[in-house]
Amino acid sequence: MTAEMMQNMSMDAIGMPAMDTMTMQECIEACSACEQACTMCADNSMADGMMKCASMCTDCADVCNTMMRMMMRPTGFDMASMQAMLQACMTMCAACSDECGNHSEMSETCRMCAMACDACRAACEAMLTMMRETETA
Amino acid sequence: MTAEMMQNMSMDAIGMPAMDTMTMQECIEACSACEQACTMCADNSMADGMMKCASMCTDCADVCNTMMRMMMRPTGFDMASMQAMLQACMTMCAACSDECGNHSEMSETCRMCAMACDACRAACEAMLTMMRETETA
Amino acid sequence: MTAEMMQNMSMDAIGMPAMDTMTMQECIEACSACEQACTMCADNSMADGMMKCASMCTDCADVCNTMMRMMMRPTGFDMASMQAMLQACMTMCAACSDECGNHSEMSETCRMCAMACDACRAACEAMLTMMRETETA
Amino acid sequence: MTAEMMQNMSMDAIGMPAMDTMTMQECIEACSACEQACTMCADNSMADGMMKCASMCTDCADVCNTMMRMMMRPTGFDMASMQAMLQACMTMCAACSDECGNHSEMSETCRMCAMACDACRAACEAMLTMMRETETA
Repeated sequence: MTAEMMQNMSMDAIGMPAMDTMTMQECIEACSACEQACTMCADNSMADGMMKCASMCTDCADVCNTMMRMMMRPTGFDMASMQAMLQACMTMCAACSDECGNHSEMSETCRMCAMACDACRAACEAMLTMMRETETA
Repeated sequence: MTAEMMQNMSMDAIGMPAMDTMTMQECIEACSACEQACTMCADNSMADGMMKCASMCTDCADVCNTMMRMMMRPTGFDMASMQAMLQACMTMCAACSDECGNHSEMSETCRMCAMACDACRAACEAMLTMMRETETA
Repeated sequence: MTAEMMQNMSMDAIGMPAMDTMTMQECIEACSACEQACTMCADNSMADGMMKCASMCTDCADVCNTMMRMMMRPTGFDMASMQAMLQACMTMCAACSDECGNHSEMSETCRMCAMACDACRAACEAMLTMMRETETA
Repeated sequence: MTAEMMQNMSMDAIGMPAMDTMTMQECIEACSACEQACTMCADNSMADGMMKCASMCTDCADVCNTMMRMMMRPTGFDMASMQAMLQACMTMCAACSDECGNHSEMSETCRMCAMACDACRAACEAMLTMMRETETA
């Protein structure tokens, strides 16, 4: 339903051609999936005594939620803020994936969380590339 | 992936038989969908000058996100807190659905947001019923 | 500054006499303090291997933040939602205070977090009482 | 109490000398104040039909809350993620201050919100400068 609602919203304000909403939609979904994976992984890592992992995943969940919400608010869209936040989300996801990757063999939760972080980082990068192309078009 | 991760996590602590994780999983998904719908509807309603709707949807997005996260943290599960939060989420979703329902004919975004609120309220009620049955079993 | 801004906002919509904004202001501050205490306590408890405490504090931080924000949005004020959320916040703070209270002698962070939870629960109760009196007045 | 709790937490992990926790503490307080100002300003701007302002302030509140929480979680501290998030918060606060500044003469709420955004941007910059000096020390 999110995709359908997004298409009903006015994207004119943010200067994106219609075809590009798919890139943003994929980024929204990747952020949502990463927030969920990190929230569960944080809780599971607390239980397993992996303290650094639990703390980083808690950070990453908050960053991904904020990133997702920003993309869902075209009315106040600001190019510089969106780009800086995409950079922050990419950096956080890369760091969290590295940490979770250290425990992938012991913990299936960490293995899946690292995958969600990688997918989110890639989706943010695609979004950033698309925005830069739109800017210079 | 969320469903798969949830199954890997230890639910023993919270005293739920395996079959019931499906009810919780559906509630998690309904909360996530409602947070997203409310976030977009709030932004769209700001743009359309529907101020009460925008404000209530912003509240509802925060409530649904908190509700979702609580279900994803079995390590610190507390029966009374979970039940009180489910009640709060049901009440908020009902109020937000009523408000969005007022604009359903004018705004396709409001119509879909009201549907997401109704679905979330129903999923929270199913979760609450399941928890009460588990308690008395 | 929060108190000053709150006084500039229109409270007429939510039917509260001017004198009562002090009760709400105190509740906002208690929620903010509790979110901060719980966020720090969660991180510290992760590091100390107190897993249940870390998970409950993470929940409580989210609940308090949502509670705080709802009070800051008078435009969409809904009496039933606010009361249900105050109940949820009180229940969550009581549970979190109990858990942190178990470690108060070992951990100064837990001791202070339990105090913040108790203060938040009391402020929510005062807010709820004030709202019920306003309703029946 | 936040300042007192922060001093009890182990900062060794993040390589900050004791004197520098004051810079971080000021940044935490500025983020908290900005989240609160933006949440109220968003709601007030919805009511006043200033849609772009309402949407940007809602974004800024989420960014500031995430920024604040990251500083409160030293256990999973990651230098690159923290720096990128500080940059994102500074950019968002500058954009939000610009937008609110446009309505400062009409709206006392916008005027105070712009001040909170400016203070938060400055506090994040001081934090970033301090972190870079620590890195190269």
